[in-house]
Amino acid sequence: MNLAEFNQSVREIRDDRVRGASELARRCLDILMITAGKTWPNQSAAELQRCLLELADELATTRPSMTVLQNLLRQWRQGFTSHFPLKDLAAVRQAAVNQAEQLIAASQQAVRDCAGYAAELLGRGRTVLTHSRSSTVVEVCRLLKDADLRMIVTESRPLEEGRQWAEQLAAWQVPTTYITDAQMGLFVAQADAVLVGADSILTDGSVVNKAGTYLLALAARASQVPFYVCAENLKWRRAEQPPLTLEEMATAELGVPDWPGVTVRNVYFDITPPELVSAWISEQGCMDRMPKR
Amino acid sequence: MNLAEFNQSVREIRDDRVRGASELARRCLDILMITAGKTWPNQSAAELQRCLLELADELATTRPSMTVLQNLLRQWRQGFTSHFPLKDLAAVRQAAVNQAEQLIAASQQAVRDCAGYAAELLGRGRTVLTHSRSSTVVEVCRLLKDADLRMIVTESRPLEEGRQWAEQLAAWQVPTTYITDAQMGLFVAQADAVLVGADSILTDGSVVNKAGTYLLALAARASQVPFYVCAENLKWRRAEQPPLTLEEMATAELGVPDWPGVTVRNVYFDITPPELVSAWISEQGCMDRMPKR
Repeated sequence: MNLAEFNQSVREIRDDRVRGASELARRCLDILMITAGKTWPNQSAAELQRCLLELADELATTRPSMTVLQNLLRQWRQGFTSHFPLKDLAAVRQAAVNQAEQLIAASQQAVRDCAGYAAELLGRGRTVLTHSRSSTVVEVCRLLKDADLRMIVTESRPLEEGRQWAEQLAAWQVPTTYITDAQMGLFVAQADAVLVGADSILTDGSVVNKAGTYLLALAARASQVPFYVCAENLKWRRAEQPPLTLEEMATAELGVPDWPGVTVRNVYFDITPPELVSAWISEQGCMDRMPKR
Repeated sequence: MNLAEFNQSVREIRDDRVRGASELARRCLDILMITAGKTWPNQSAAELQRCLLELADELATTRPSMTVLQNLLRQWRQGFTSHFPLKDLAAVRQAAVNQAEQLIAASQQAVRDCAGYAAELLGRGRTVLTHSRSSTVVEVCRLLKDADLRMIVTESRPLEEGRQWAEQLAAWQVPTTYITDAQMGLFVAQADAVLVGADSILTDGSVVNKAGTYLLALAARASQVPFYVCAENLKWRRAEQPPLTLEEMATAELGVPDWPGVTVRNVYFDITPPELVSAWISEQGCMDRMPKR
């Protein structure tokens, strides 16, 4: 792998605005598998090993607001290095690929299990309001699409991933209402529940998710509508991890001119405090309060 | 005035998405003045009188969420008809124009007085967050632009009147931060105060304003940032007026395709309850609680 390929892989993850955190974390493992499979002249086992570890470390820095990406890559590194020393190139390849495949399968299963619990909690015939497009929430809707589910989805500025989401729900024939983010306060009272995914969950249960989620949680609380968060355990931040950074993206995404003296801001995520969360749903089930510490 | 001109005047007010409620209300009076000045063959005083009253009544129905428009046109009607019977065409014209001019001047003065009180309340060196573009808030900023004012403004979907607003603030050299509506919860804690205008204020003090205002008020309360509403008295709804309708605009404004089974909604206004309002500022001063009823 040359430097250009290395940088391109890192850039792919850094610039992705479509996939949710879990999908993107699994894509990092894909990239490690593809890299492990590549050949270049005079390649040695030690070189490939070093290259893969460097790539994993670099990928883990790309999306500071997405804890699952850091956690999944850390697990991959632990599993991969536990096989050291590896005797030849083939063994390095096999260890890297096996470890990635195993973690991808586990992550997919975790998302399915999360979604199963969320679908059970919601039940039949519900109207659910969500913000942005979480792959875990997509999976919940897939499970409930023939159970009289109705959805309210937001456009989700600036890149409006709500469009792709509405199109998916239309294909599933789920009756859907599509609103601007600013209308969340008007429509939350029509929902039986709010369900969102998460990019990260902090140690105190605070939810890091697409900007606007905090406003939605405030409105849900004011209307006494339950606010559920559905996210696999690997999205929880551990106490020893450094403080989370809220990613800010290119201001060009807002599509406005360069006014003198005007600072355009495009912070992608906000933080919803635990007291606004009715339940955290993971692959282990539902938890309706944070354990006392 | 023929039917086409009549309908065009009504349509102008109905379709305007740029001007705030006060500006639009005054524009209705402009239209009545222009209409009063028009001549057509064999016109009689009685005909012009009838035409102007019909136009005023029709204009009053165009924007059900904007109480000031209804109230200003009601005042115009009262003043105009108080001169009846009018002896000739010239007298009808003069009564219509005088009445409109007087009310436009009073409305402009009311907005200036509101803004004066708001500027006094805010004081020097403040960071103020606002949503949408209110002509009264514009006037407040004009008064404070050389008093170390800093603004945080929202894009205000769907038509993004925040753009025009940011451009104005840039021209005034007011340091400004421009954000998506969804980022209001992230930035409210950086503000010393939230200041918004209103399209209407209900008898209990609830504030009808651009969708998203309610979310901002919730976030302001959660961050203990004062939430001020600045609106002339004519925006208050009187008990005898019918319940207010929240206007819904063309869904084409959201710019999404026609997905089967997906209902696109574009409700322009939401309602902020009085308990989230720190003070109502009118041309009579500041009121920090609703009088007991």
